[in-house]
Parts: sequence; C-alpha cells; structure tokens
Amino acid sequence: MPDLITSAANPLAKRIRLLADRKHRRREGAFVVEGLQPVWCAVEAGWEIESLVVAPTLLRGTATEEMVAEQEQSGVPVARLSADLFNRLADRDGPGGLAAIVRTRTGGLSALTVRPDALFVALHRIANPGNLGTIIRTLDAVGGAGVILIGDTVDPYAPAAVKASMGSLFAVDVAHTPGADEFFSWAAQRGVAVLATSGAADEDHWDAAYEAPLAFLLGSEREGLPEDLLAQASRRLRIPMVGTVDSLNIGVAASIMLYEARRHSRG
Amino acid sequence: MPDLITSAANPLAKRIRLLADRKHRRREGAFVVEGLQPVWCAVEAGWEIESLVVAPTLLRGTATEEMVAEQEQSGVPVARLSADLFNRLADRDGPGGLAAIVRTRTGGLSALTVRPDALFVALHRIANPGNLGTIIRTLDAVGGAGVILIGDTVDPYAPAAVKASMGSLFAVDVAHTPGADEFFSWAAQRGVAVLATSGAADEDHWDAAYEAPLAFLLGSEREGLPEDLLAQASRRLRIPMVGTVDSLNIGVAASIMLYEARRHSRG
Repeated sequence: MPDLITSAANPLAKRIRLLADRKHRRREGAFVVEGLQPVWCAVEAGWEIESLVVAPTLLRGTATEEMVAEQEQSGVPVARLSADLFNRLADRDGPGGLAAIVRTRTGGLSALTVRPDALFVALHRIANPGNLGTIIRTLDAVGGAGVILIGDTVDPYAPAAVKASMGSLFAVDVAHTPGADEFFSWAAQRGVAVLATSGAADEDHWDAAYEAPLAFLLGSEREGLPEDLLAQASRRLRIPMVGTVDSLNIGVAASIMLYEARRHSRG
Repeated sequence: MPDLITSAANPLAKRIRLLADRKHRRREGAFVVEGLQPVWCAVEAGWEIESLVVAPTLLRGTATEEMVAEQEQSGVPVARLSADLFNRLADRDGPGGLAAIVRTRTGGLSALTVRPDALFVALHRIANPGNLGTIIRTLDAVGGAGVILIGDTVDPYAPAAVKASMGSLFAVDVAHTPGADEFFSWAAQRGVAVLATSGAADEDHWDAAYEAPLAFLLGSEREGLPEDLLAQASRRLRIPMVGTVDSLNIGVAASIMLYEARRHSRG
C-alpha cells in the first residue's frame, strides 16, 4: 500500500486548506471538490484532476475504490490520507472519503457556445455562494447552457458554491465578464435576448414569450438590478408576489424562470 | 436617556447568545430576530415581542426610531445596547441596529386553518434551516397558508431559518407533527389533497391538476421521501430534469411547485 498521509503539515494537506481561500484559488487556478457524486461528475465530465484525495479506509469495498484505481492507472495522481486527517480537512457533513483538487475553467464570454436553444443565467454582483451553486444545479437540470457572472461576484469555486451545485458545476459553462456593457454587447452580437427579472416589471413571467437563445438577468441579493441594466434588457419580467413579500430568494427566482422557459419550449 | 447595556455579561446579552441554541429556544419558548425588515414584520403581524433590542446610535434619525418609541409607549420592553455590543451579538451581515426577542408560536396540525384555497407545504425531516426559511418566504409570496414539519426536522426559529425567511415566518402558520400518520389523517379529515414530489413519479408537474386545498409533500435533502409516504399521497408529481441531475435543491423544488399551483389557479 502506498504511503498514507497522516500529518496536517504535509504539503498536500496544507494546499487543501489554502484552497479554501479565494486568493489562493485564483493564484493557483485550482479548487477542492468533496464527495463521491461531485468528484465523479468532475471525472466523467473530463475536467483536469490535479489530484484525487482519498481516505482508503473510508472507501474500502465501494465502487468508488475501482474508479480511483482506474484513474490512477490512467495517470491521475492519487493522494492517500488517514481517515482522521481526511475528516479534519473535509466539510463536516462528511464527503465519504473522496475529494479532488481540480483545475478551474472559468473563461470569458467568448468561450460560451450559443446554440439556438441555449438558456443562460446572467448574475449581476451575486454575493452568496450557496445561491450561485443552487442556480447552477437548476440550470443543469433544465439543460441550460451557462452562467454568466457580471462584475464583482462570488467565486463559483468557493466551497459552498461547489457543494450547492451538487456536481452540476462540471456540466455547465461558467463565464465571467467585468462589466454589464460587455455582457449586453455579447448578447446583441450573438442574438441572445436578455430578460431581466424585477419586482417592478409589468409583464408576468407566466405570460411572456421565451424565444431562445435567451439569458435571464438577475441582480444582487441585496440590491436587485440597477435601473440602467433594467433599461438595457430586451424585456422585463416579474414573478407575481402577494402579501408583504417584495422579493424571492435569488436561487428560487432564477429557478422559477428557468422552469417557466422550459415549460414554454417543450414539445 | 435610559441605561445603555455595554457588557456581554449582562443577562439580556447572555439570553440572546443562549437563544442561538435550539435547546434553549425550546425551553424558553423564544427566539431572536435580527434586522429592520424582519423585526418590523413581527411587530406588524402581532407576534408577542418579549423585548426589542436596539443600538440607539445605529438607529438615530431613522423611521425605525419612531417605531421603537411607539412600541415602548404601548408597553413593549426595549433594551438599549452600545453599538459595539450589539454588533458583537448580531449576525455579521449587520442587522442595522434592531433586533427582537420574540415568543415562538408553532402549534400542532389542529391549529391550522384550512380555507378552500389553502396551499400548504409539508416537509418530512427537512434538515437545512436556510432551505426551510426559503420555502416559508416563497409560500408567503404565493399567499400560501402554512408549513407542516413532519418528524425530526430543523427548527423554524433557528437563526438561519429566520434570516432566510426574510420576515415571512411571521406571515404564515408553521405546525409540527411527530409522525407522517398524523399528517395523512389530518389531510384526509380536512379534505386536503397531498401531492408528493418525487423524481421517480410519472406525472409532470406542468400537467397536473391542482385543486386546493392541497399540500405539497417533500422529503429530506439527503433521502427524499420514503416509499410508504409516497404511496400514501393522493398523487405523485415530478419536476422534469435532464442531464445527470437527479434532484433539485428542496427550496427550489417546493418553490417551483408552489408557483405552478399558483399559475393553475389564477383567474
């Protein structure tokens, strides 16, 4: 059996801890994925695996053990940790003995493929990693094409975003653009309709036409969309709300929109 | 000016810290709400306020200052904290100088009012407080009647649940029942249709009939609904998913269902 890493001072253990920090992720171009299903998604989707990180005693006798062996044979480095060290480094929910260090892939808008049926979600200054991961998960569930992050946003490779995406991060494209102008230019050039979501819009999302390719544009959790972005959108849609509620969780709002577009486009 | 509490050893400061713990909330029948909008919702909805907790220097010159003065005149105790102590006790996002200790109100199923148009969400063993708060927020947005917690679930008064509900916790009923049998008996007696959500169901949620009163039944984040609960439901609906995704975030799934029911019931 190969050497088992037991010390938190080991360089790989240190690297895993450092990658919890955004600065390090950006500098290193890598992030950590935990859990059988998400790591499996990364491998199957062909993302570059810098290292699989396993706790052999936690994986013993599982199908995952074979998958790890196959990856190792094909040249992927595998680091083996004691169960104790693995559990100290991992999220408290317990990823079951498997993690991976994966190379990041976020590109610019030009890296996005715009098929005629493409659905995108564009997020202006989104701040909560769980919300971003949830949106990526729903986008994947409707067969969407990609997420576009505009301006100063949360990192899609933040641990809470990766976790909330439940492996869908590896199935959809994520692009970043520094400003809204670039986003609107890209949409105009590619013929992508921009549907902005706003509580103040006068068209209900149920009644709208959804002609792909399209991008739903949503604002930040705290401030929504600024007026100038709303004004530049092709259309403005609202999700009807009653009572004292004046907004929905952004992950919920994006998901309702995505499923409404899917409902309109089904056969 | 009344005495300003500056010490973390003050009994009220201690009480706020202890109420972060579920055991204490249950024993004391009270919980903490932070932030202008949520506290305002609690007051307007007529929930029993044990004490408003304010940082006068953070509220100075705001409309909230007047609201606090009115409440104090009508007999609600007001505790005044230094900004420093307030910020140490409060959530890091900063609730803006206003919090409250509020009496809990969860009842049993018999406390729920079943109007002909009532929409409920029943959650079996839901574990994540943010998801519960998000569902309460969406339920309020569609004019829903209440949330039913079945079995061993997260506490609706957990800080993360209260925060995610954005004040909607005070606008909808929350009932708890120890077992699924009681829930199904209640639904049968009150004529409430139970629509279970499952990835394995064969009826798409878009095509279903939604005749109120009804309750959407959803299972836990990790395990979904057990077979026997699925079998007892009036109907089983699925939200169509493509690709490798086999489930949605539970807050997203409940929200999509609630909006689909609303779409079917509108004029």
